[in-house]
Amino acid sequence: MDILSIDSLSDPQIAEILDRSELYFAGNRGRRSNERLHGKIVFNLFYENSTRTAMSFATAAHRLGASAIALSVEHSSVKKGETLEDTARTLNAMRPDALVIRHRENGAPAVVAEIIEAPVLNAGDGTNEHPTQALLDAAAIRNKFGRIEGLKIAICGDIRHSRVARSNAKLLPRLGAEVRLAGPPGLMPNDLPAISVDEAIDGADIVMMLRVQRERLEEELGDAPGEYLSRYGLTTDRLAKASPTAVVMHPGPMNRGVEIEDRIADDPDRSLITLQVEMGVAVRMACLELVVSGGA
Amino acid sequence: MDILSIDSLSDPQIAEILDRSELYFAGNRGRRSNERLHGKIVFNLFYENSTRTAMSFATAAHRLGASAIALSVEHSSVKKGETLEDTARTLNAMRPDALVIRHRENGAPAVVAEIIEAPVLNAGDGTNEHPTQALLDAAAIRNKFGRIEGLKIAICGDIRHSRVARSNAKLLPRLGAEVRLAGPPGLMPNDLPAISVDEAIDGADIVMMLRVQRERLEEELGDAPGEYLSRYGLTTDRLAKASPTAVVMHPGPMNRGVEIEDRIADDPDRSLITLQVEMGVAVRMACLELVVSGGA
Amino acid sequence: MDILSIDSLSDPQIAEILDRSELYFAGNRGRRSNERLHGKIVFNLFYENSTRTAMSFATAAHRLGASAIALSVEHSSVKKGETLEDTARTLNAMRPDALVIRHRENGAPAVVAEIIEAPVLNAGDGTNEHPTQALLDAAAIRNKFGRIEGLKIAICGDIRHSRVARSNAKLLPRLGAEVRLAGPPGLMPNDLPAISVDEAIDGADIVMMLRVQRERLEEELGDAPGEYLSRYGLTTDRLAKASPTAVVMHPGPMNRGVEIEDRIADDPDRSLITLQVEMGVAVRMACLELVVSGGA
Repeated sequence: MDILSIDSLSDPQIAEILDRSELYFAGNRGRRSNERLHGKIVFNLFYENSTRTAMSFATAAHRLGASAIALSVEHSSVKKGETLEDTARTLNAMRPDALVIRHRENGAPAVVAEIIEAPVLNAGDGTNEHPTQALLDAAAIRNKFGRIEGLKIAICGDIRHSRVARSNAKLLPRLGAEVRLAGPPGLMPNDLPAISVDEAIDGADIVMMLRVQRERLEEELGDAPGEYLSRYGLTTDRLAKASPTAVVMHPGPMNRGVEIEDRIADDPDRSLITLQVEMGVAVRMACLELVVSGGA
Repeated sequence: MDILSIDSLSDPQIAEILDRSELYFAGNRGRRSNERLHGKIVFNLFYENSTRTAMSFATAAHRLGASAIALSVEHSSVKKGETLEDTARTLNAMRPDALVIRHRENGAPAVVAEIIEAPVLNAGDGTNEHPTQALLDAAAIRNKFGRIEGLKIAICGDIRHSRVARSNAKLLPRLGAEVRLAGPPGLMPNDLPAISVDEAIDGADIVMMLRVQRERLEEELGDAPGEYLSRYGLTTDRLAKASPTAVVMHPGPMNRGVEIEDRIADDPDRSLITLQVEMGVAVRMACLELVVSGGA
Repeated sequence: MDILSIDSLSDPQIAEILDRSELYFAGNRGRRSNERLHGKIVFNLFYENSTRTAMSFATAAHRLGASAIALSVEHSSVKKGETLEDTARTLNAMRPDALVIRHRENGAPAVVAEIIEAPVLNAGDGTNEHPTQALLDAAAIRNKFGRIEGLKIAICGDIRHSRVARSNAKLLPRLGAEVRLAGPPGLMPNDLPAISVDEAIDGADIVMMLRVQRERLEEELGDAPGEYLSRYGLTTDRLAKASPTAVVMHPGPMNRGVEIEDRIADDPDRSLITLQVEMGVAVRMACLELVVSGGA
């Protein structure tokens, strides 16, 4: 099985990933590795720069006793003009046990998964989906609140271009949460009702801020970075409108002072940001185990 | 022992590599790893971009339980002006169990092998040799035909600059095949009789097309890419002159529509192209095992 | 515990590293690996190009049965403007067992170590320190002379910018050696008495030459490369002033013909240069084992 989208997963599979992540989360804190994927080979194919996701998948593979082999763009036949399909045929013929792919084009992982016989995990494709990010967000929320059902979750920022928002907007409602998407009018999808960031945050249990690309600030908003924070970013004033116990999330890397105030990002009582990263390794362990060995 | 050239290998060693590759080929299909090189360290030193060869060697090392450590050019002292000999002395002092090297200069692996005490495997040097590619071609041919002896093999394209052609022109005749080299007059070695691609393909059991670099099309042929296909590339018409059961090979990455027609590249009954890649891992496992642990 | 500076280490810890290095040195020659760090994960974070140090740490980790995961700058969030602190928080949340960092800014490893709960090893920061280089230099000296105490060690070249000189100037006197630092007046620290290279070498048991960056030759010395050798480099004439049994060291990569004459670099009786590299793997094994598992 592949994990290309949140839609790839059944409810029981999601439940299994979240349950198992909790176990691995505890194990990772004690820096325990196991050998469940001993001798397995995971190809990490990153066509876009990435610290956290590439390292997170590699760490997850190693914690399970597997080998991770990284293929970076700079070293690839991409430069020689090979098609993505031919690259996939080549990699498939090497018989990896799983392939993780990040690509700037929407749907590239699905194209690759048509060809690769081993499980394919989408580590982010263009503006489409980033399913393991949504799973780790859900796992972090459940770890913090003990549940997901009934929570009000505001996701704010560049919704139009955010694969994180798209995957979360699929996953979190399936788990019973109320998701509110908000952002600058120029950065909202056309088919979504535009609500303001303030409206989204009002009474929210969780405020998830998205990274805004600096280039888009000027191009699409005509804004200076500082203006973004006051108009759409997470300030202390704005956060005061959320639930008194509200927590803050961000998929990283953060633009401090643009979409989020320093003080909020660094508040240990309110920020789940490092918990998200920590859950990331656990969730990817659970995903790799599920797709490679069929899980429990 | 080193594998710098096909000439590095005795007939019994070639036979052993081909026999063992067949076993590993079957094992890889079942994604089986072993631990024969457990605890061994293989340095992968690629001074040129590579997807398939770098990934193939890394996969082979991991399937044998070894660790592969990649050194990419971007991260090397090359930029600081260190000589290749000094780099080799440095790497030798780290006591790897084997070193794989690709380099744009002919003979660089031999220079390195003079210094490195561990076995050195040439993963392609300039326009000189690419011995593991020839071995995997032979293994793929034997897998398909059950033999190599007596087969007529046309190798077509930029013969002058092709290390693949050079290594195959040494290996395949030693195994009893008839090799015919053909290409555009401007891309043939001076010491070889120029026969046309059509003549080479006539009655051939195997047609191996070589990648032509787009820059050379214009510089040395004064051709547009489309012209190359009709004049020297593998078209359905041209392939009709080969044996009715002829198969097609290509070392990749392919320039579709330049040296080979899409339809031929994708014909599962005729194309051995993915079989070549698959055999590549098996052959490199056999080579690593032979040089590191002395084989069977 | 971290190894950020020579000052991070107590005398007994230094003694343990040197003793254990000697054992690992012998083991590496026989290419023996062990499993003392089996299942452990070492992050290798190199913000500057490196062949020898990055490969040396990766090799050390693998020889101990650990996994090394490399993060290269090209693939990092650095390009996305993430702060070093945020990168450290992210990496910490992935729970590595150790983190090795090279960075062009002085003090960057200390910043990271404030955040990372796992041990941090400084693999060179700006012009500050390179403690494992000094340790391997000490280990190589002890291997050659059987002792360090009482030896006269000249360190010559660009002292002002050399993290190697700085770490050695701390370590070697603690082990009882007399260290003399010398270089072109423009490349000496302001707080050090300027002695000439000839004075430093006079009667020395060891002459350690430092790499001079070619850009600095022109900018700060107004010199042509050839002039540097005759004025400040290690020539046969100059070496004749040292002890008759003097040996030569260099942290590499060498600028042959600039800071050192070819003939000296290649003299097997006098050059410890490859011994230094070989000791490097052994010392890094000892350091990783000490910080990760607490040593013996």
